[in-house]
Amino acid sequence: MNKKRVYLFGNKKADGNGTMRELLGGKGANLAEMNLLGMPVPPGFTITTDVCTEYFEVGKDAVVAMIKAEVEAAMKATELAVDGPKFGDAENPLLVSVRSGARASMPGMMDTILNLGMNDQAVEVIAKRSNNPRFAWDSYRRFVQMYGDVVLGMKPVKKEDEDPFEVIIHHMKEQRGVTLDTELTTEDLKELVALFKAAVKENTGLDFPDDPWQQLWGAICAVFDSWMNERAILYRKLNKIPAEWGTAVNVQSMVFGNMGDNSATGVAFTRDAATGEDIFNGEYLINAQGEDVVAGIRTPQQITIEGSRRWAAAQGISEEERVAKYPSLEETMPAAFQELNTIQENLENHNRDMQDIEFTIQDGKLWMLQTRNGKRTGAAMVRIAMEMVRQGMLTEQEAVMRIEPEKLDELLHPVFKKAALSAAKPITKGLPASPGAATGRIVFFAEDAEAWAERGEKTILVRIETSPEDLKGMLSAQGIMTARGGMTSHAAVVARGMGKCCVSAANSVIIDYKARTLSVDGLTLKEGDWLSLDGSTGFVYAGGIETQAPELSGDFGELMAMADKYARLKVRTNADTPRDAAVARQFGATGIGLTRTEHMFFDGDKIIAMRQMILAKDEEGRREALKKLLPLQRDDFYGIFKAMHDLPVTVRLLDPPLHEFVPHDEKGQKEMADVMGVTVSEVKERVESLIEQNPMLGHRGCRLGNTYPEITEMQTRAILSAALDLKAEGIKTYPEIMIPLIGNVLEFNAQKAVIKATADALFAERNDSIEYKVGTMIEIPRAALTANQIAESAEFFSFGTNDLTQMTFGYSRDDVASFLPIYLEKGILKNDPFAVLDQVGVGQLVNMATQNGRSVNPNLKCGICGEHGGEPSSVEFCHRVGLNYVSCSPFRVPIARLAAAQAALR
Amino acid sequence: MNKKRVYLFGNKKADGNGTMRELLGGKGANLAEMNLLGMPVPPGFTITTDVCTEYFEVGKDAVVAMIKAEVEAAMKATELAVDGPKFGDAENPLLVSVRSGARASMPGMMDTILNLGMNDQAVEVIAKRSNNPRFAWDSYRRFVQMYGDVVLGMKPVKKEDEDPFEVIIHHMKEQRGVTLDTELTTEDLKELVALFKAAVKENTGLDFPDDPWQQLWGAICAVFDSWMNERAILYRKLNKIPAEWGTAVNVQSMVFGNMGDNSATGVAFTRDAATGEDIFNGEYLINAQGEDVVAGIRTPQQITIEGSRRWAAAQGISEEERVAKYPSLEETMPAAFQELNTIQENLENHNRDMQDIEFTIQDGKLWMLQTRNGKRTGAAMVRIAMEMVRQGMLTEQEAVMRIEPEKLDELLHPVFKKAALSAAKPITKGLPASPGAATGRIVFFAEDAEAWAERGEKTILVRIETSPEDLKGMLSAQGIMTARGGMTSHAAVVARGMGKCCVSAANSVIIDYKARTLSVDGLTLKEGDWLSLDGSTGFVYAGGIETQAPELSGDFGELMAMADKYARLKVRTNADTPRDAAVARQFGATGIGLTRTEHMFFDGDKIIAMRQMILAKDEEGRREALKKLLPLQRDDFYGIFKAMHDLPVTVRLLDPPLHEFVPHDEKGQKEMADVMGVTVSEVKERVESLIEQNPMLGHRGCRLGNTYPEITEMQTRAILSAALDLKAEGIKTYPEIMIPLIGNVLEFNAQKAVIKATADALFAERNDSIEYKVGTMIEIPRAALTANQIAESAEFFSFGTNDLTQMTFGYSRDDVASFLPIYLEKGILKNDPFAVLDQVGVGQLVNMATQNGRSVNPNLKCGICGEHGGEPSSVEFCHRVGLNYVSCSPFRVPIARLAAAQAALR
Repeated sequence: MNKKRVYLFGNKKADGNGTMRELLGGKGANLAEMNLLGMPVPPGFTITTDVCTEYFEVGKDAVVAMIKAEVEAAMKATELAVDGPKFGDAENPLLVSVRSGARASMPGMMDTILNLGMNDQAVEVIAKRSNNPRFAWDSYRRFVQMYGDVVLGMKPVKKEDEDPFEVIIHHMKEQRGVTLDTELTTEDLKELVALFKAAVKENTGLDFPDDPWQQLWGAICAVFDSWMNERAILYRKLNKIPAEWGTAVNVQSMVFGNMGDNSATGVAFTRDAATGEDIFNGEYLINAQGEDVVAGIRTPQQITIEGSRRWAAAQGISEEERVAKYPSLEETMPAAFQELNTIQENLENHNRDMQDIEFTIQDGKLWMLQTRNGKRTGAAMVRIAMEMVRQGMLTEQEAVMRIEPEKLDELLHPVFKKAALSAAKPITKGLPASPGAATGRIVFFAEDAEAWAERGEKTILVRIETSPEDLKGMLSAQGIMTARGGMTSHAAVVARGMGKCCVSAANSVIIDYKARTLSVDGLTLKEGDWLSLDGSTGFVYAGGIETQAPELSGDFGELMAMADKYARLKVRTNADTPRDAAVARQFGATGIGLTRTEHMFFDGDKIIAMRQMILAKDEEGRREALKKLLPLQRDDFYGIFKAMHDLPVTVRLLDPPLHEFVPHDEKGQKEMADVMGVTVSEVKERVESLIEQNPMLGHRGCRLGNTYPEITEMQTRAILSAALDLKAEGIKTYPEIMIPLIGNVLEFNAQKAVIKATADALFAERNDSIEYKVGTMIEIPRAALTANQIAESAEFFSFGTNDLTQMTFGYSRDDVASFLPIYLEKGILKNDPFAVLDQVGVGQLVNMATQNGRSVNPNLKCGICGEHGGEPSSVEFCHRVGLNYVSCSPFRVPIARLAAAQAALR
Repeated sequence: MNKKRVYLFGNKKADGNGTMRELLGGKGANLAEMNLLGMPVPPGFTITTDVCTEYFEVGKDAVVAMIKAEVEAAMKATELAVDGPKFGDAENPLLVSVRSGARASMPGMMDTILNLGMNDQAVEVIAKRSNNPRFAWDSYRRFVQMYGDVVLGMKPVKKEDEDPFEVIIHHMKEQRGVTLDTELTTEDLKELVALFKAAVKENTGLDFPDDPWQQLWGAICAVFDSWMNERAILYRKLNKIPAEWGTAVNVQSMVFGNMGDNSATGVAFTRDAATGEDIFNGEYLINAQGEDVVAGIRTPQQITIEGSRRWAAAQGISEEERVAKYPSLEETMPAAFQELNTIQENLENHNRDMQDIEFTIQDGKLWMLQTRNGKRTGAAMVRIAMEMVRQGMLTEQEAVMRIEPEKLDELLHPVFKKAALSAAKPITKGLPASPGAATGRIVFFAEDAEAWAERGEKTILVRIETSPEDLKGMLSAQGIMTARGGMTSHAAVVARGMGKCCVSAANSVIIDYKARTLSVDGLTLKEGDWLSLDGSTGFVYAGGIETQAPELSGDFGELMAMADKYARLKVRTNADTPRDAAVARQFGATGIGLTRTEHMFFDGDKIIAMRQMILAKDEEGRREALKKLLPLQRDDFYGIFKAMHDLPVTVRLLDPPLHEFVPHDEKGQKEMADVMGVTVSEVKERVESLIEQNPMLGHRGCRLGNTYPEITEMQTRAILSAALDLKAEGIKTYPEIMIPLIGNVLEFNAQKAVIKATADALFAERNDSIEYKVGTMIEIPRAALTANQIAESAEFFSFGTNDLTQMTFGYSRDDVASFLPIYLEKGILKNDPFAVLDQVGVGQLVNMATQNGRSVNPNLKCGICGEHGGEPSSVEFCHRVGLNYVSCSPFRVPIARLAAAQAALR
């Protein structure tokens, strides 16, 4: 038995239905479904997505031969359904549209050919039958242009090149002295058709096809070809759509909204796509064809009276003027409107989601051309989902599953005002390292950002790359732009933690610190010039752009609470300050999964004591400096523990290579020499001795604690003293001490012994004690490979997937910009592994370590504290392998909570 | 039933035997065995190694209580066997020795207490019975000193502190105006005993124990305690001896070689320990106790007449003088000698190995005190093994297993002349990065090493660290010393490849390039001063030390051929030049497992073209430079393939980060600017843009080939052109193209496609073709984790365990010196993982990748080309996991061949 390759629809009957998106594409499935729902849809047929796959397997000719009989039969059935015109008929020709239809709409693919079947004979017949020659010739002209552009490949590849047909129209309008297309006469249109056909001949060497069947096969094949064009491939890559899905082709009898004043065409939404409000809304044009609505030549009118009134009020148009010039469809064609309104309600109820619909009214009769789930803003997404729950249209679980976690980000960060943005043109693009919009004046140095902020100036901190020393400046700036680094560079990680906008890896920008300028493509900006960043897209704009703050609705809170009901995975936060901890708590974090102690050392006097510790010649010198650091560190922990009272706080012991803390400039070295009473050259020598070839793989993490155990002692004492002090105040704390960069169980045991001895001594001194846990980061491949050994003495594992990704891939996150973009472009990598957890490689280690660790220690608590902890697909992975929690930046907490719920429901 | 804890021996009977080394220790087992062989051994007993383990489990008192009855019974049996004196008897006291006896002899442990049982009563009786009061008091004096030092802990911990007993002796000799101990009178010795006992009282607060049983238990416990002393623990760590082995204690009745001129003591070897010659040899002293032979106060005499004559000839002593002053034992005590000679023959035949024996002659009667397998030089090891095969004493397999692979190294490299070395004192110690000895004049720059070598000067190249630019200088120098880097730093790896002596990580050396000096601990040496390096120990000496070249005997070749018969694992070499390839071939390499192409680029004009390629702005510029490189690279490969004709050669495509090739100095940048016709600042900017934070994890390996495929094209063309040219000359080649740093199968596939396309084009051009393979390094953890994917398209895997170790541990081999020594010292690491493959972590990945790779590609050829390929325990691991070959530096090839054979036989 032959496989069915062509599916009919029309007259409230259809071979397919709405569940068959995979085979018929979204558009085809919905056209079938609308028929089955008894809605008026122009008859036609859908060629399946399987045929597209076959097309690339066996080639064009074989596929055409394979489906020829079925397509011809389907056309016969369509003719029967429209009852009158016939495809290619001399007396009463049937015109059709040809549209692509993948499972999801995809830019870059051939979209639509209208009026197919038109030729020199047909145009005359249609002119006569419609009694509207201009309509007939305009349809012909449009068809030749669309077909020439899309099917015959005359649309220029580069955007800046002009469409050859537009050049011809432009030339004619100049000759005629007119400005609008509509001012061209029927004779002009006839001449245009002739000129267009000559252009086709000149460009392609071929005559324009007059035969409707030849036209049809050309269009069908062009749809398939467009599935493999560059833009479509790129889009699929970006949106993770497999090439095997293929596209369907929809061939549908034409209806005309441009047959006179009793005809119209329009688009509508069943709810407001911007706000989510439950109100039917949309736009239409009388006597127009689909493309005119979006072309912007005429002002589209609102569909409902209420919508029309709101629109007029916003435009400052009086009710009188509105009724006269811009009446709603509800007013101009009440019958058609009522039918449409009933249909839209039915469609939303049937699909249980906000619908985006297209319709045409031909001679007073409503035809539905398309329905699909409508795109919406993050705010609308939340409101629609929650209202549908309240309206009983969705279960809570369904509502949770409907939310796109990444879209919540929009709700949490400032954005550019739409109007302000539309006037701006980006000067370059980097990586969208930390979302939100920021605008301010350019500074190149962290201390300037601080100083300018003190006098009330908004700044954008522009750096080649940032380092921990820039921390306070980053906090003072509105946003950060770096020329180097990737999605997990210092700037990116820290900015995300702060919820601050950051664009990283703006490779084409050249920064001159001396001249205090940045230049890009010939444009030079200097300190103090305004700059704007979109950290959600990576675009950088010269000049200031007005931003607006996010607003969190009650729906948002309800949604989050609902999500938590279904999630198994807990969500903690990465926070280094009481401020971050408080923000994360507001966003629903159930503890801190990672407090990095190193950032604390850059604050005030601490850096001096810290440097003294590092530059000390021996243990005695280090102990002296550590004595100064102890009370300061204790205060840090006191603040964080207090903000996170009653919840667990994981504190990571000192992790980065020491050279990150020491002064590399003459001035700083002089200062340290004075403080320490040694010569500048001694300081310099020590600083130089700390330089490493590959600091990421150097003397850091527990290697510091194991070579200088006195650091671990000090930090343990600071952590537990703070906890004891809070206990005395009646505040509960749950400190978890985390040892970084373990690769060998003996490293862990040695550090644990130091911690335990210090704790025991402290508890004895204070005659009081507190429960605490000692665990480890799993961030070195060898730790994952020997997890069964480490879990025998560790109480928890926290996967540091940033470092684990670095070492599993052998990628330095600071240097990856030189090849990662090319890898993504060539498809060697599907995702940036620093943004989306690599489940096959890195994930294998995470899974292995979790299972092996629990095999010897069933109570082992496992979590993740890399940047992946806030990325939905990675959160789902964490759920699947059975982790206990994920930990992420404060501003990613809601996203992770939702992703955790979805993972549990999936 | 009680476990037996004490084993008797004496009068040709014994509870134990020679196979019971684990329980009785080496010494105890051999004493038992010699009894069973009917040899004269002073009776005694052995307390087992199990008791030592119990000692550390249950404590001293419990253990003493546990074995008291058994020890007392054993002492009774011993008294019975010696038939006369009794332990602690007033009339005829039995003296005993107490010696430790682990499975292998271990420095740092308590070795020997002689004359135990001596006290104020016993000394008088013995003086009377022996009619030799001086002997009796000397024995007493010695006992108090030994017991005080070892059992009572008075031996100073630091070497530079003086032994309190020696201070007393020294003081007395000064008072008496004598220089030799033997010049002290009996009265002096009596006074010494009194002074010694007073010193004990002063030091320990306790009276010296007079009770023989108290003495005995003290000595037994001291042996056990010494098992856990610091030096013993360190030694066990270095030699991988588990603490659980424990030590036995041997208590044996004393015999005296110092009872007069008919008594003697000596040590002997059944073959020559230096050369391996099959000749009985050794030294003895008349009227002496064991320790006198080694004390160097009197000149020991030779045992055989032949040995004595050879010795005299070497010393320029006439036969008359020899016979008068230094007669052999064969001459002085012919009967005892004959008995000894028979015993030594029997011992060697029985143990089937060269024996190191100790004996004492008391009053004309021979007593055997010890026999064990003798230590020997590498040359002796080979000769003895091969001669024993020819003599029918060993099978071939046994002979192969007898060889210590690492010891072969001695045979392959120059060494210091012994006499010259004894006068030299090391000024510092680094890592023994590449074995052999070297002496020469200090230079600090590679170009100086070249220039000085041209005028015939021997040099030592001293650098903070080396880089590929130093290659030619390294080749010109006798040896290389670096202040930084580890066992797999650039200098170490390259030097080992060259077979050139290198000491790396000489941390305490401060190098001043500007002043051209190095200083260490206050000593400053300047350019041109002589320096000597021992790359096998890491010692560095000021001044020149004469070296001697290695000599390879016929036995060596036979041994190697014999080993190959039993090995399954093939041994290839890492070689980058025809010279290296030829050396390795001589050493028996069966192909090249790794040719690094990057070293080639530093030669002559190539570096200019290479730099031009790197500094080029675009693909076109790169292609132009690559065109210049192509013929030069082709010549490189031509030479290597020719040297390795008929054997496979694996060529790794360009691997290191590009910044390693570009000029970082003004002069070099100027030169490139001139060559390329651009400004110096353009060159500088490009050079700076190549700087990476962590170059090891940066833009290198296949990331270069995937971003600049034209490099891969050029190298493929060069490789295959060279092979085709050789084919035309009738020379067979088997090129294997290896893609480095793969972490993702798509990276591999993309490079393989480039290689295949280039090969197809070349073969078409030349109208000829050649077989070649395309495979990959597995050196990124992710490659090992996804080996099942990669093996679907790769034809071979070569484990790059250097990089795999770096990334699995997260250790930069260039920076590891800051913590690795401390980790080794603290026992956090048992071995340097760059020297000895970490089987648990890195090995797990190697095993996983091999099994998973072969599961999809059963013919997958797997090898290892990291530095571990020449390390015996790592070679054994490679055999166990089923690799096809190991590849190592040319000079490690014999070691690897032997290790491969041993692994197969084990």
